[in-house]
Order: sequence, then C-alpha cells, then structure tokens
Amino acid sequence: MSDSNSFSLESYLREKKIIVEQALTRYLDYEDRHPAIIFEATRYSLFAGGKRIRPILCIAAWEALGGGGGDDDILPAACALEMIHSYSLVHDDLPAMDNDDLRRGVPTSHRVFGEDIAILVGDALLTGAFELLSRPDLMAGIALATRLKVINIISIAAGMNGLIGGQVLDLKSAGQKIALATLEQMHNLKTGALIAASLKVGALLAGGDTASIDALTRFGQRIGLTFQISDDLLNVEGDRALMGKNTGSDVQRGKATFPGLLGCDESRKLASRLTEEAVACLAGFDSKADPLRKLARFIVERKF
Amino acid sequence: MSDSNSFSLESYLREKKIIVEQALTRYLDYEDRHPAIIFEATRYSLFAGGKRIRPILCIAAWEALGGGGGDDDILPAACALEMIHSYSLVHDDLPAMDNDDLRRGVPTSHRVFGEDIAILVGDALLTGAFELLSRPDLMAGIALATRLKVINIISIAAGMNGLIGGQVLDLKSAGQKIALATLEQMHNLKTGALIAASLKVGALLAGGDTASIDALTRFGQRIGLTFQISDDLLNVEGDRALMGKNTGSDVQRGKATFPGLLGCDESRKLASRLTEEAVACLAGFDSKADPLRKLARFIVERKF
Repeated sequence: MSDSNSFSLESYLREKKIIVEQALTRYLDYEDRHPAIIFEATRYSLFAGGKRIRPILCIAAWEALGGGGGDDDILPAACALEMIHSYSLVHDDLPAMDNDDLRRGVPTSHRVFGEDIAILVGDALLTGAFELLSRPDLMAGIALATRLKVINIISIAAGMNGLIGGQVLDLKSAGQKIALATLEQMHNLKTGALIAASLKVGALLAGGDTASIDALTRFGQRIGLTFQISDDLLNVEGDRALMGKNTGSDVQRGKATFPGLLGCDESRKLASRLTEEAVACLAGFDSKADPLRKLARFIVERKF
Repeated sequence: MSDSNSFSLESYLREKKIIVEQALTRYLDYEDRHPAIIFEATRYSLFAGGKRIRPILCIAAWEALGGGGGDDDILPAACALEMIHSYSLVHDDLPAMDNDDLRRGVPTSHRVFGEDIAILVGDALLTGAFELLSRPDLMAGIALATRLKVINIISIAAGMNGLIGGQVLDLKSAGQKIALATLEQMHNLKTGALIAASLKVGALLAGGDTASIDALTRFGQRIGLTFQISDDLLNVEGDRALMGKNTGSDVQRGKATFPGLLGCDESRKLASRLTEEAVACLAGFDSKADPLRKLARFIVERKF
C-alpha cells in the first residue's frame, strides 16, 4: 500500500467490503431468532448490496492514522455507521417519503415485507447500531471515554442536525425552487454529516491528534457533498442497470438537484473542485492516506 | 417519605413528572432551530401529556437504592427512556401500524404533521435518546463503564428482542387466536422490556449491588406486564374522556388482549397476583422503596 503506483483501489474496496460484511454477519446474530420476520427483513436490507462506503471510509481514516489494535476495535463502529445508513435508506424509500420500489436492483423493504415491517426494520437498524457501539465484549482496546464520544458523534450526525434534518429539507424542498446554498446545506446534513462522522470516528479510534481528526473531518465534509453531486449526476445521466434503481426519478419528482440548478457541466466542475479541496486536507498525511486520496477521486468519477 | 402513612403517591407522581418535563426542556434545545418543523413536531409528541411512568420508575429505583449525586446523573437516563417510549408511540400510531388518530386526547403526530414527518419524529426521538445518554456535559458523577452499560441495556430493551420484537408480534397476532403464553411474551417484549430497563438503569446508576439490581429488574418485569393488562382492561371498560383515546378499539381490530383471552375477572386476578409478586421482589428494601410499592398498586388500580 506504500507504493501508490501499485495500489489498486478496486482491490482495496473489494477487500474492505468483504471484511465489513463478514463483521456484520459476525456481530449480528440474526439466524433462528424470534420473531423471525423482523430479523429476516432487517438482514434483507442490510445485505441487499451497497458499496459500504461509510464503513470503508471509517476504516481508511483509521489506517491513515496508523490505527492499530484488533479489528474488533474499529469494525463495530464501521458496522454501526453502515446500519445507520441502511436504516435511513429503508425509511427514505417508504411510500410516505420517496415511495421507491427498487433499491440496489432489488425491491425495497416495504415492497417485500409491507410498510409496517419496513418502518420497524429501520427502527431496528438504528437501535441495533447503538447496541453494537455499546457492547461490552467488543472494542476492548478503546478507552471508555472515546467509546462514549463515538456514540455521541454518530448520534449527532444521525439526528435532527444531521441525517434527519437533511431528509426533512429534502422532503420540504420537493417542487420548490431553492438556492444553491440551501441545496448544499440539505446535502451537508443528509449525506455529509454521516460521511464526515465516519472519517472522524475512524480518526478518533486510531488515537489521532486534534489536528488530524479535524483534517479528516473536513475531508469527509467535502467528499460527502461530492458524493451527492455525483449521485445527482448519475440520476440524470446514469445507467439504470449499473445503478440498480430507476434513473431520472429526481426530475419526475420535482426534486432540487445540482444538475437542475447548475447544469451538468457546472455540477461536474463543482464536484472536481471539492475533490481537490478534499485531497488538500490530507496534505500533512503520508502514504497511509493514499486509499483516501484515491477514494475521493473515485467518488467523483464513479459510474454507479 | 420515610413515614409511609403520610406518603402521597399522587404528590410524588406530580412532583416527579414536573422534574422530568423540566429536564426534557433543559436538555433538548428545540427552540428556534432549523428545520423548524421537525423540532416543532418532535416537541409536540414529547410534550403531548403522558404520565412519564418510565422515567419516574427509573428515578424511584435510583432513590430506593439511595442514589446520590446530582440530578444530572439520573435525569438524562430517565429522559432518554421517555424519548424512546415517545418514539415508539409515534411509530405505533402510524397509518401502516395501528392507524390511530388520537393519543392522550390530542391528534397523533401524523394527523398534524403528515406521515413523512411523523416517521422522522420517531427516528429523531430514538436517535436523540442516545445522543442524550452520551453527552459529555452530563452524568459527570457516573463511571464511564456504567454509562456505556446503560446505553447497552436501553438499546437492547428497545431493540428486536424488546420493544420492536413486541410490536412485530402485536402486528402479526391481529385477527389471530393466540395462546396466553404468546400474549404474555408479546407484552413482556412490547411493554415489559423498557419498563424493566427503566428500573434496572435507575438501580445501576445508584450504584446498587447485583442482587438489588436484579430484584428491581424482576419488579419491573412484573409491573410491566401488569401495566399492559390494566391497559387492556381500560380499553374494554375505560372512560374515553379520562383515557384521552378511543376505547373499545382493540376488539374492533381483532387484537388479542388479556380480557379477550381470560375475561375481565380473571385478567384482574392475574394483574393482582403479578402486583403482589412485584411487591415481594422489594422485600429486602427499606422505606425508600415505598414509592415503588405504591406505584405497583397504582398501576393495577389506575383509571386512565
């Protein structure tokens, strides 16, 4: 990994994704449990594909700061971040919200299990994330004060000043003409907050100093917004087969998007500028931060 | 309070309710926040009445074991329990679940703010509970290991092996003929788990020994079930005006209830027996546990 020429982001992402999914399976005992339907439905959403970007960013931040210790120090937090992301997708897809039938190429939770169970699946993933973060048998190498801080950071990022606030702005902006600053604020909350928290938590668990933690958090804020711009662009220009969901749906719903507000060219330019800003945040880091540098560029160039 | 003859449960409940509501207002900064609607809607549900039984039980358990320290040691946990209870009501009332228009005498969240916001209100209360439990400026007198344990206990009680599992059994048992054991299991999860957790957390924060914590937890399990039996009885026999919600609704929905399964007389007998068992769990406690003893009897005798 120290020779950046030989580093393959593709292999890195594939390898980390497997590690995250194995950890989710190991930590969450969903087999032969009662009532079966809620365990089955929760597993369905949590394992319905997904790039696992948030946990991978968390692990990459931890590695960038030379985080040592066992996997059971970093993976519970990484998995909790993915569970919270997964809950937010299940609730966002509900008929009362975005009313999506398809997510990552498969029917959404409420289409398979009904709306009642889908609401409870979201609740269970959110609750389960905090159960995982507070488990007495995991994160043995992490100071208790740090563990509590991680829970606080993640709960704030997921709350009304983060994920939930962003979703409210998204719902309320549908069909409205909004300013670029409002759109940016919405996505900083809806996507940026949890992505920035993923980096921050990884840095904190690695025992990074304040300057390093701040740098990685700022990196996260920038790639979080870039991630959303590229999502908007893919919704306009993307390939339905690659995306695993319906494209063009934002326009149909009258959703405010970056391409809608700025056009595709200017949106791409904004994403590129943010990516360069993000990479600049890592100026003080050595080659252990190369995966993060490559990830930042991957986000702006991705096709799915 | 040491002279049980002069002790008035009514005053105790009134006084503690005020303390809990003041703490909720103090801890949760919902004024002039953006996006306003989610803060307003969350406050609407959290302050729409309610007996505040769970936080009061938490405080009473803490007092029973002579819990000292500041209010900011016990009240964050008490408030978090109420927030989780409140979230569960908002989600249970949704059209896809019980479809209730009225709760505690006022229109339910989704009737006032729409289904999308009501889903997010529940999410925000659940997330906010964990934010409160992990706040660095509160619970200064509590050991970090204990704080982490409290988060773990509450997340388990609220999860698929508790509150959420119970709600699933409730939804799936509608219109079904179920056995008494299944009905008990459903309510042990849906109501008992969080009530037992309230007692356990209060005992743990007070620094109680294992035997005392266990005794209070067992007390909680019994009064949790009693609470549900009395709820079912009130749904059959209760006064709509006192209850603040529609009575007779369980029968209309084909819900399995204790009166439906056992008849009203046998249900009352079961509730009385469980109450005596609960009070017996407190045999080793002194008069500081009198509020809990009185609370147990209040639950079985309550009219609202």
